Amino acid sequence: MTVDKGLLIVLSGPSGVGKGTVRKAVFDNPDTDFKYSISMTTREKREGEVDGVDYFFKSHEEFEKLIEQDKFIEYAEYVGNYYGTPVDFVRETLENGHDVFLEIEVEGAKQVRDRFPEALFIFLAPPSIAHLESRLIGRGTDSQEVINHRVQEAKRELELMNLYDYVVINDSVDEACRKIHSIVEASHLRRSRVERTLRKLLLEADN
Amino acid sequence: MTVDKGLLIVLSGPSGVGKGTVRKAVFDNPDTDFKYSISMTTREKREGEVDGVDYFFKSHEEFEKLIEQDKFIEYAEYVGNYYGTPVDFVRETLENGHDVFLEIEVEGAKQVRDRFPEALFIFLAPPSIAHLESRLIGRGTDSQEVINHRVQEAKRELELMNLYDYVVINDSVDEACRKIHSIVEASHLRRSRVERTLRKLLLEADN
Repeated sequence: MTVDKGLLIVLSGPSGVGKGTVRKAVFDNPDTDFKYSISMTTREKREGEVDGVDYFFKSHEEFEKLIEQDKFIEYAEYVGNYYGTPVDFVRETLENGHDVFLEIEVEGAKQVRDRFPEALFIFLAPPSIAHLESRLIGRGTDSQEVINHRVQEAKRELELMNLYDYVVINDSVDEACRKIHSIVEASHLRRSRVERTLRKLLLEADN
Repeated sequence: MTVDKGLLIVLSGPSGVGKGTVRKAVFDNPDTDFKYSISMTTREKREGEVDGVDYFFKSHEEFEKLIEQDKFIEYAEYVGNYYGTPVDFVRETLENGHDVFLEIEVEGAKQVRDRFPEALFIFLAPPSIAHLESRLIGRGTDSQEVINHRVQEAKRELELMNLYDYVVINDSVDEACRKIHSIVEASHLRRSRVERTLRKLLLEADN
């Protein structure tokens, strides 16, 4: 990835930590100028979710066909459903110099790391495990059995945070958003990214 | 440096780029909670400068005695005067968990890099060399000869930016301040810095 390409921003973290809520708040901010990569999933639409806005909702058959065609940057099966990131939108948007924001599961983030090691990996962590569990219960969409399973998964997923560049604790959605914006802004200012512009400055200085 | 210690923030860049102006604006922001390390110098006080606020002003003899006593993190002779960062304040403040902000010359930053490789190095760059020169002229404190010398120095110093973590172009003082705050905030969220807190979280989760 050269400096002129956009930055690939990956927000992940355990199930129930509030990734979706934080992502929505990030994009509600009018200063946000990165593009959201909409995930594809086979899970049931939840109340209020819109196809093509929250997710692209697909059948198992459709999803598996796209896997065969290598149309995902990452995909995972999670609690019986597929979740994936379509590759074409991401590549084209980065090539055009725009930042792309992925909000994905921890397993998927591992795959992105292998393919895009220069991406920016942000781990959204819960203030505590108890907090995570109560959030899952409050959502009211899962049975206690599913919740127990998700909490076990979350503990396992927390151990994967050492693959990330940054960790944001989600104790306040507004604060988490602000921190994500700071991380993205700082990443754009990394010397390795701006070197080309600066080299130009030096050449001009010699004229 | 362990995670509980403060972060050492080093702002540097070519002479005349506006380091002092940006530093003052950073500290005028009431949200700034890092401590400013006041430099020591043998140069003449400029109009409006206050001893113990802008610099500690010392004689050549006093400064050289402190060099002998190894009382500087870094010091440099620059256009015939010494500039240095007293070591005691920095170490104590970092140990107490506060961030310390240094605004220093490029040569000094190199010395800090050798002693504190984990510090955060921010290079303040001019929008162009022409911009830098007109700023030095506008300051009205230096002769044309000194200005020419400073511009030559600045070109040489620009080549040292590859030792820095971040580059902020000083085309607007407000924007430069905001960017510095983002860089510092992001640095506090680096996974390597917050790992200890998170490990505690994991241990609690196992109880």
